[in-house]
Amino acid sequence: LEGHLLDSGLLERALELTVQSGGSFQVLHFKLGKQRQSTSSAAIKVSAPSGEVLDKIVGQMIELGAVVDPREENDAELKPVTQPGVAPDDFLATTIYPTEIRVAGDWLPVRDQRMDGVVIVDEKREVARCTLLRELQTGDRVVTGSQGVRSVRKPQLRTVRGRSPAEHEFAFMGAGVSSERRVELLVNQISWELHQVRGRGGKIVVVPGPVVIHTGGGEHLAWLVREGYVQALLGGNAIGAHDLEQALMGTSLGVDLKLGTSVEGGHRHHLKAINTIRGCGSIAKAVEQGILTSGILFECVRKGVPFVLAGSIRDDGPLPETQMDLIKAQQEYAWLLKGADLILMLSSMLHSIGVGNMTPAGVRLICVDINPAVVTKLSDRGSIESVGVVTDVGLFLNLLTQRLGKLDQKDSA
Amino acid sequence: LEGHLLDSGLLERALELTVQSGGSFQVLHFKLGKQRQSTSSAAIKVSAPSGEVLDKIVGQMIELGAVVDPREENDAELKPVTQPGVAPDDFLATTIYPTEIRVAGDWLPVRDQRMDGVVIVDEKREVARCTLLRELQTGDRVVTGSQGVRSVRKPQLRTVRGRSPAEHEFAFMGAGVSSERRVELLVNQISWELHQVRGRGGKIVVVPGPVVIHTGGGEHLAWLVREGYVQALLGGNAIGAHDLEQALMGTSLGVDLKLGTSVEGGHRHHLKAINTIRGCGSIAKAVEQGILTSGILFECVRKGVPFVLAGSIRDDGPLPETQMDLIKAQQEYAWLLKGADLILMLSSMLHSIGVGNMTPAGVRLICVDINPAVVTKLSDRGSIESVGVVTDVGLFLNLLTQRLGKLDQKDSA
Amino acid sequence: LEGHLLDSGLLERALELTVQSGGSFQVLHFKLGKQRQSTSSAAIKVSAPSGEVLDKIVGQMIELGAVVDPREENDAELKPVTQPGVAPDDFLATTIYPTEIRVAGDWLPVRDQRMDGVVIVDEKREVARCTLLRELQTGDRVVTGSQGVRSVRKPQLRTVRGRSPAEHEFAFMGAGVSSERRVELLVNQISWELHQVRGRGGKIVVVPGPVVIHTGGGEHLAWLVREGYVQALLGGNAIGAHDLEQALMGTSLGVDLKLGTSVEGGHRHHLKAINTIRGCGSIAKAVEQGILTSGILFECVRKGVPFVLAGSIRDDGPLPETQMDLIKAQQEYAWLLKGADLILMLSSMLHSIGVGNMTPAGVRLICVDINPAVVTKLSDRGSIESVGVVTDVGLFLNLLTQRLGKLDQKDSA
Amino acid sequence: LEGHLLDSGLLERALELTVQSGGSFQVLHFKLGKQRQSTSSAAIKVSAPSGEVLDKIVGQMIELGAVVDPREENDAELKPVTQPGVAPDDFLATTIYPTEIRVAGDWLPVRDQRMDGVVIVDEKREVARCTLLRELQTGDRVVTGSQGVRSVRKPQLRTVRGRSPAEHEFAFMGAGVSSERRVELLVNQISWELHQVRGRGGKIVVVPGPVVIHTGGGEHLAWLVREGYVQALLGGNAIGAHDLEQALMGTSLGVDLKLGTSVEGGHRHHLKAINTIRGCGSIAKAVEQGILTSGILFECVRKGVPFVLAGSIRDDGPLPETQMDLIKAQQEYAWLLKGADLILMLSSMLHSIGVGNMTPAGVRLICVDINPAVVTKLSDRGSIESVGVVTDVGLFLNLLTQRLGKLDQKDSA
Repeated sequence: LEGHLLDSGLLERALELTVQSGGSFQVLHFKLGKQRQSTSSAAIKVSAPSGEVLDKIVGQMIELGAVVDPREENDAELKPVTQPGVAPDDFLATTIYPTEIRVAGDWLPVRDQRMDGVVIVDEKREVARCTLLRELQTGDRVVTGSQGVRSVRKPQLRTVRGRSPAEHEFAFMGAGVSSERRVELLVNQISWELHQVRGRGGKIVVVPGPVVIHTGGGEHLAWLVREGYVQALLGGNAIGAHDLEQALMGTSLGVDLKLGTSVEGGHRHHLKAINTIRGCGSIAKAVEQGILTSGILFECVRKGVPFVLAGSIRDDGPLPETQMDLIKAQQEYAWLLKGADLILMLSSMLHSIGVGNMTPAGVRLICVDINPAVVTKLSDRGSIESVGVVTDVGLFLNLLTQRLGKLDQKDSA
Repeated sequence: LEGHLLDSGLLERALELTVQSGGSFQVLHFKLGKQRQSTSSAAIKVSAPSGEVLDKIVGQMIELGAVVDPREENDAELKPVTQPGVAPDDFLATTIYPTEIRVAGDWLPVRDQRMDGVVIVDEKREVARCTLLRELQTGDRVVTGSQGVRSVRKPQLRTVRGRSPAEHEFAFMGAGVSSERRVELLVNQISWELHQVRGRGGKIVVVPGPVVIHTGGGEHLAWLVREGYVQALLGGNAIGAHDLEQALMGTSLGVDLKLGTSVEGGHRHHLKAINTIRGCGSIAKAVEQGILTSGILFECVRKGVPFVLAGSIRDDGPLPETQMDLIKAQQEYAWLLKGADLILMLSSMLHSIGVGNMTPAGVRLICVDINPAVVTKLSDRGSIESVGVVTDVGLFLNLLTQRLGKLDQKDSA
Repeated sequence: LEGHLLDSGLLERALELTVQSGGSFQVLHFKLGKQRQSTSSAAIKVSAPSGEVLDKIVGQMIELGAVVDPREENDAELKPVTQPGVAPDDFLATTIYPTEIRVAGDWLPVRDQRMDGVVIVDEKREVARCTLLRELQTGDRVVTGSQGVRSVRKPQLRTVRGRSPAEHEFAFMGAGVSSERRVELLVNQISWELHQVRGRGGKIVVVPGPVVIHTGGGEHLAWLVREGYVQALLGGNAIGAHDLEQALMGTSLGVDLKLGTSVEGGHRHHLKAINTIRGCGSIAKAVEQGILTSGILFECVRKGVPFVLAGSIRDDGPLPETQMDLIKAQQEYAWLLKGADLILMLSSMLHSIGVGNMTPAGVRLICVDINPAVVTKLSDRGSIESVGVVTDVGLFLNLLTQRLGKLDQKDSA
Repeated sequence: LEGHLLDSGLLERALELTVQSGGSFQVLHFKLGKQRQSTSSAAIKVSAPSGEVLDKIVGQMIELGAVVDPREENDAELKPVTQPGVAPDDFLATTIYPTEIRVAGDWLPVRDQRMDGVVIVDEKREVARCTLLRELQTGDRVVTGSQGVRSVRKPQLRTVRGRSPAEHEFAFMGAGVSSERRVELLVNQISWELHQVRGRGGKIVVVPGPVVIHTGGGEHLAWLVREGYVQALLGGNAIGAHDLEQALMGTSLGVDLKLGTSVEGGHRHHLKAINTIRGCGSIAKAVEQGILTSGILFECVRKGVPFVLAGSIRDDGPLPETQMDLIKAQQEYAWLLKGADLILMLSSMLHSIGVGNMTPAGVRLICVDINPAVVTKLSDRGSIESVGVVTDVGLFLNLLTQRLGKLDQKDSA
């Protein structure tokens, strides 16, 4: 075992599961890292009453990131798919952590790493790849059991411009979820990161919910798109409908966003907006025709920022762009998430959970919601690169764009 | 205007919108109902500076339920659809309230009433029907403007066995959303209603989220299905996956439901359960094959209770029964909701919002969630038949089945 | 009955209670106000089977604000206190609404109006005054029953500079409690009001909780004090301790407010701050001695803004200024609340409830908290002058001072 | 360092603070416990550039529970109090963990351990005792700095009847705070513990808020008192007032607890109840006089269970028993908490925080609230004996008494 053993509680869990499973252990060697950033290592000898128990323990240890002594290591066991869309019984379910599979004595890194997938190895035994249950074809060779599998649970945060962030920043951003924190500081840090990622041509994906519009964050998110801080946008029909409602009729769910009052008859506005866009043929065509002239999706169309609106059971309309086939919507989401450096989840639990499942460790996740339970659910991935912010998303975006505007001014100065 | 004018604030809103729109009014006549249950009526003369303004005011009044003096009333204006899936600009957006359309001098009741739809009238001008934007065909005649339209906003609660519920029950169930209420009393009342509806062969639809399983409510909901208290079940892939996980592996999200502890490797359990069912071909086949022998969906299959699992962007698998085409999922939901007497929404915001949009006024809605904001959102339909309960859904179902069990015992005694 | 009968549901409740109590009614006359701002009036004849029932109904009607026909009106019944601190059994419990008592044929306005008090009339029968149960002296004459009592439930918002606020502002500020509103607009409105109240020499009372410090709002609230936007501050030992901790050690609950990280040993900081101030003798002396040089209480001392810190069961220390005798603390709160025009409640439920009980209708209340349930509890007084804001209090204060700063710049330009 | 070093992250924090403070370390020896229950030990050599830095590091290590090599250990430094109620600057602030002080070469265990206190040593140097800042007398010798201080952070849960609870119970009860857990299981476990504690004559302290009454838990808590499951009750004026309101008038905050509806005029009921009790002289006298015949406090009086009602700024009345002098209220709380085995905190954040501060490690704390943020705040003491339950307190008590009733039946069978 190598890594942040104490920091992350890995060692403790490894030993615990050994005992729970009926095995016993001996710590042969334990080397503590001298500083928080450095890694520790431990060599542990595991004994078990039967090969089966040993196998089970070792499998779970591998899942925790243990490297089984190569002298005793075997290739991963591959079993063929006999029914399309169904894996062999003891298939390996993937995590968000980088994984390697031992095939013909070599360790193949798994491509397209994501959660809750399965790993298949190609016929030439050269490529291991994550896929989904439903995409399995008869004959695909699926990794089963836990032999010949290893994964690494190191902190994966990509350093910015080659510099590692200062230690205290980790501690700060990683502090627990609470509404009693100073959000101004988090906004400073996040704006600095967004600015850095944009500066080096990185990829920022935003996952906004309709509350962004209701709380007045629409214009601020539109600014982020316009200023190049958004490289892809993943949402649902609702954020689309209310962004368009605001752009076409000045309201959100019928509430006038300038006055804050309900407009009589306003509850129909989002339907009218959807109908207008349906009449144009698409959001892009509404921009072309000069009908749509502001808002988040307008800026996306103008800047060429790709977006996916995934359908749901609650959708009105839907908008022409809304993908109501959820198999396709998941594929399109996954496609746009490839290569993401930073994901900004803004008050959208459903879509953010979907995005979280598709995203490997090592991508910076920033989750903003006013409900602490939602933030806890989304940001609790056991990884250092997740940050939860319990706050008002409208004020958050207001402050974020103010800070980014100042950073931009400094740049041009 | 006739109805619970004061109770529901209708009169006040009607007069307010008149003034806001630039008109003025005179109350010709006002008759207050003598008791809460009886209705009041008011005759109001509206004047406006222009025909346009008058039209706007009258349109909004009709939406509030006003009956425009028939001597001056015209037929509804019908405009043809010129582009499939797109309504004429000034289409009438529907509400949950029963609506009638004046066609050729006759008032046609609107069928399939639901929220956020449009009304089309058939060629023979005999049937008016709610439909969705996306289902409009070229040539369909859509109701536009507000002339020749009337809707009724009376309390729509169907009385049970011909008896109207006692007054205090209304008051009680209709009290505001708060976590500081005595839920035992609500459970008593709800169990009594469920028992009555089942007794007279009524239709109860349940909309459960996966939290039902996590909080230990699974066995209680299974009991409800088994005892005939559920006539249809509407959920998502997650409630299915965790119900099956519990039935096949004894865990929910990897937590042992007998011990309350996390099972090592348990986070893969729902995937294994999904894979097992995929291998069987369907949930029904898993029951046939003797593989699935308990749980909510097992009871549904055995009792022949229909269910729909709607897909979403966050779904793993999915289960063979999960409908990933959301257009179809919405149709199947709407189909199973037809004729519902009572809908029990159990900690599932997404699916409950979908169900709420499809459900006309007059159906009893009971929304249970531990988050007051969710309950407020779901139960705030401005109608007397919605009840919000802020509580722990697992304990709620525990107590509910206890009470129903006692009512059943009395029946058989 | 006169007032906003429909708007506020008063008429409906009046009729309902009549029927519930066993009486019946006839509406003799009903005159609707033409606009929202104007009042309606209704004359209602109430019959009851017995004088006792009639008395009960009339009593409740009076509580709702009804004016009983003076031809039949009697003086209020006064009963003497026979045991210190104990009222006669059927004492009149007061509300926040302006009340008048008929004594010797004259209507005396009740002074020191507050909730949950009792009314006593002086010996000369010239002054009616609200007091508390515990302050009753033997011989005090207490108003009992409901005869000779009337109260007015009109919107009480004092107009600013003689101008009534525009209609839409009422509607806007009065909208329901939700985290899905545009707080920027509310901040604009509130900053405008604060600026007006300061401009005309009005009185603003702030009721802050320690979360203000934790979320970084301390420097912003200090700014408000410094710039003359606070005329009194009511809090507890905790806001004091953490304000002083921040001022003396740069942390809040041990979290460095510049870096956002926990300081090792920082959980003792608030105790050390308290000890330091105890050593100085008082907060004011710490300022004098040059030991305390920044923060909210520092600004209060420098500006001469009075403050009360009320003790509680959870207090450490306490600070020398903290009033641990809660009878005295309530008296000091009530004293500082006299004449308040606007009260800003900032994430402090306990102290805000206390303040709410002491505050008569007609004072603008603005309640800010991130928990919607708290905001609902505090702002739900049935009166138009209460505004609830569900948001992050740190960002709220940040934005508020930004806006006020701009208004101040305009003034000086 | 000895203890659950890995489990509790102690070792990691110890090393981190060394590096942060500018020191370096060498792990001389590390012995891992073989099982979760067994303890690990580590010998660490710390070097630092100056004696001052070393002192600081060692001080913090001691706070974490490290035992400094006795060969190099000195006596604790004692400094005299020179100003009543003020500690010397560098006083040692206490934690909830058992602490020992080295005086004249001997290690004295600290009596009356509590949080945020100071330690004084008597003249004969035989007794070390926790006290509060405000209780310091001139001449008292206060422990300062960190030399000669050690504390132990072992799991402190007293075993029940000599048996250590099974491992899985720890894991289960200790799982994170979430509303998505099976509360039935927690109730089973808690009822079993309450039954055990009562069985062996242990001490259970209940800290209830008024929400217990509003949610219908009053009769269940009264049952607990009657059946001997409560040895002391700590609350505020509000739980008292609403318990008495329910007992005397059948309502809670004016809501009829049998019907669930608001009683007209009911908002005055708690005041009337308070006035009635004030007239009797005290709650005990109201019982004597046959006026109070049911409810929680009635049962307390009848059973001789002591209770304290602490005053607060929001209190009406107050009740004769309510202690409005908070210095005394804290003393009375602390007195009744002495020797507690288990504390049940029921929806009362304010009083529960107070109780938490006064309670040393090793006492079982069970915190029930419907708001996850409150449960997190209360149960997050970093100690194994704290359990948070996010649920509806009324249903929780309903289920708890059902289970206890069954356990009692078994006993008598």
